[in-house]
Amino acid sequence: MRISELSRRTSVPVPTIKYYLRAGILSGGRLIGATQAVYDEGHVQRLLLIRALADVGELSLASIREILRAVDDEGTSVHEMLGTAQYALGEAADGQDDPEWEATRVEVDEFLGDLGWQVTAGAPARLRLVRALLTLRRLGFSRSARDLHPYAEAAHAIATQEVAWLPDRGPRAEAVERAVVMTVLGEPVLLALRRLAQEHESARRFGDDTADPTSGPPST
Amino acid sequence: MRISELSRRTSVPVPTIKYYLRAGILSGGRLIGATQAVYDEGHVQRLLLIRALADVGELSLASIREILRAVDDEGTSVHEMLGTAQYALGEAADGQDDPEWEATRVEVDEFLGDLGWQVTAGAPARLRLVRALLTLRRLGFSRSARDLHPYAEAAHAIATQEVAWLPDRGPRAEAVERAVVMTVLGEPVLLALRRLAQEHESARRFGDDTADPTSGPPST
Repeated sequence: MRISELSRRTSVPVPTIKYYLRAGILSGGRLIGATQAVYDEGHVQRLLLIRALADVGELSLASIREILRAVDDEGTSVHEMLGTAQYALGEAADGQDDPEWEATRVEVDEFLGDLGWQVTAGAPARLRLVRALLTLRRLGFSRSARDLHPYAEAAHAIATQEVAWLPDRGPRAEAVERAVVMTVLGEPVLLALRRLAQEHESARRFGDDTADPTSGPPST
Repeated sequence: MRISELSRRTSVPVPTIKYYLRAGILSGGRLIGATQAVYDEGHVQRLLLIRALADVGELSLASIREILRAVDDEGTSVHEMLGTAQYALGEAADGQDDPEWEATRVEVDEFLGDLGWQVTAGAPARLRLVRALLTLRRLGFSRSARDLHPYAEAAHAIATQEVAWLPDRGPRAEAVERAVVMTVLGEPVLLALRRLAQEHESARRFGDDTADPTSGPPST
């Protein structure tokens, strides 16, 4: 197909496709003339993946490039692909020279140890958890990492299901793409459903003495 | 306390505090001279809340202002506070004029109906869920909203616990601040723990045939 058809199929504007071609995150089409190229279903799928990571996953072009490089590298296993996607989702937090940070970090390590989770020492998610817990503590909430246990239970339930969804045989390309999509797009899905469930449960608990819930938030 | 002490107590630089004062999201101190003001514990707590929303919640100044206005408005109930915090976390997604979007929106409505969740029609989280599901579908994953059921279960488990944590008596100010902190900071906590649980479960399932998990992601 021509680039105009590729654009129509993916809803990605032609100038954006050309930008991705120049940036090297979308491979060129097959040349059928000096300035004409044709594209195939592989290009459609790759463009949809790029848009998913950019629009829904809100990843930078640099992060998308890093993920796609791992997807295309035959040497990347499904397990490594998950790690690569996670690293692309967020860098490590700072604050390591603060004694309060250090104490919270030790507490998070113990909490994860109690859960029996084997995770790498430098995983960005571990440091993000330290930062969130330290912030909660400074605000006067959450005296202990153990307060996070309900979050760990919910997170473990969904992560176990997600990992079970990954194929352990069949084409590698399909498995690693699934790992990426699940890791990145699972986040907005989980967060959106948590917010909706909060609204539902809050209405059940507090609904009697509040305004009409169909009216949205208080206007400003 | 003087502004220098306020800065020391909160780890927020003096110029940033002055910026918040000018922007009107932090109320001024008590004047003790032409150019000198003193601040109290209320300022400490408010500054910590602002930094939590900005740094960990990654909210804009406009969103923080909207949240603080609701926190300070005696007319905002805990239930309304949750809604305000959720609206501040994310605006509605676009795409409403696309027939594929419309079909996905109807399917999400039915899915939420099957779950028995009472949520407002225009809730931003509902539209974010539509966008994520539509993206998954275009990529060839998730043929039906029912595939999201494990996410809904995990989300409902944590949301139920969170709403139960909110006090239904005692000072209103404390309850609404707790609602804000829980809604906003619960997200990075849940996501960080999901990523760590994924790593743990993936290592259990795929660990035998992959590289040393302590080596981090494949280097680029």
